Amino acid sequence: MVKQERAARTRQMLIRAAAEVFAEDGFASASLTTISRRAGVSNGALHFHFANKAALAQAVEDDAARILHRITEQAAVDHSCPLDELVDVTHRLVRRMAEDTIVRAGFGLCRDTACPSAAELRGDWQQWVEGRLGQAELDGQLAGDVSAEAAAATVVAATVGFEVLGGRDPRWLSEQRLSRFWDLLLPRLTGPREPAAAGPCGGSGGTPEAS
Amino acid sequence: MVKQERAARTRQMLIRAAAEVFAEDGFASASLTTISRRAGVSNGALHFHFANKAALAQAVEDDAARILHRITEQAAVDHSCPLDELVDVTHRLVRRMAEDTIVRAGFGLCRDTACPSAAELRGDWQQWVEGRLGQAELDGQLAGDVSAEAAAATVVAATVGFEVLGGRDPRWLSEQRLSRFWDLLLPRLTGPREPAAAGPCGGSGGTPEAS
Repeated sequence: MVKQERAARTRQMLIRAAAEVFAEDGFASASLTTISRRAGVSNGALHFHFANKAALAQAVEDDAARILHRITEQAAVDHSCPLDELVDVTHRLVRRMAEDTIVRAGFGLCRDTACPSAAELRGDWQQWVEGRLGQAELDGQLAGDVSAEAAAATVVAATVGFEVLGGRDPRWLSEQRLSRFWDLLLPRLTGPREPAAAGPCGGSGGTPEAS
Repeated sequence: MVKQERAARTRQMLIRAAAEVFAEDGFASASLTTISRRAGVSNGALHFHFANKAALAQAVEDDAARILHRITEQAAVDHSCPLDELVDVTHRLVRRMAEDTIVRAGFGLCRDTACPSAAELRGDWQQWVEGRLGQAELDGQLAGDVSAEAAAATVVAATVGFEVLGGRDPRWLSEQRLSRFWDLLLPRLTGPREPAAAGPCGGSGGTPEAS
């Protein structure tokens, strides 16, 4: 059991080291020796856990996908309104991107031409955003002239942009920049509402009252 | 003179071949032999024109920057209203990205971790978008609660997203998707206007009348 725990820990250290090296050097330039050294393990230990660099990249992407899944699950518990969920998840995801190399590297691998990734993580993200905006449309929360499809494309494109630009300049992953994005977009998605209505659900129970 | 023309033509063929190989394989994996073969010239000819792979990448980015500059210059001639200019330039740029590997590769190199690019092309783009939205704000064309800064960040992030996502799925670089993005964003930027007013300048002369 102790042996299994040690193996699981080594595997996790390798995934974290790989994420750092992928984020810094890109997939093609990343060297397995650099990764095993950074994880503080031998090349043999690396090859015991991962057949090749593509398997390591897949593990990074899988870990990032699990983190994304946990974030969306938590938001589904915390909110009853799909637009609140969407805004909250983008905030949690962008914060996590700024803090956690695995999430940043996972999304980065999706757009690395040299990486054989199927970009499933990005597909997951797009599908989730489309689902939430589709639900908001069904719930009658979108303005009459706003299509869920166009809204989803805009949110997906902008969040991908924040992630890419954040790789060179961390200000793109700041709370403030994302808040301003939503201050701009949200009133357009929901249409004119009573200013007193708290949150995009229009005070229909989605957002807890600030009292 | 004939010799100079031939040299210029070889140089241009090398830049185009390099753009294709960078777009397909990424900077780190791109091989100079593949590039010279694709251009139909010898390795010696390549090294006569370019000292190394970084110099080739710089030439691709410079060419893409020149194309972007020509697009923005033309739009400045065609429109008197900064928001019309902005919408028109994004359409021309995205169309060009879909059609021209040099533009696509130029922007792609800006986000390639392995490439020593200074990402000036992306900086040029951001600066231009900020300039146009700043001008629109000065001209009183933005709604009272819309800041030029937030609008510029959203447009820059979304266009970077379109470019990145378009690398895997060309639908992201379609006219239709970009039009829907503007249908969503533009009414928010300008605020409520008379439906009869043609274009974001509100019929103030920015858009030619369709008659």
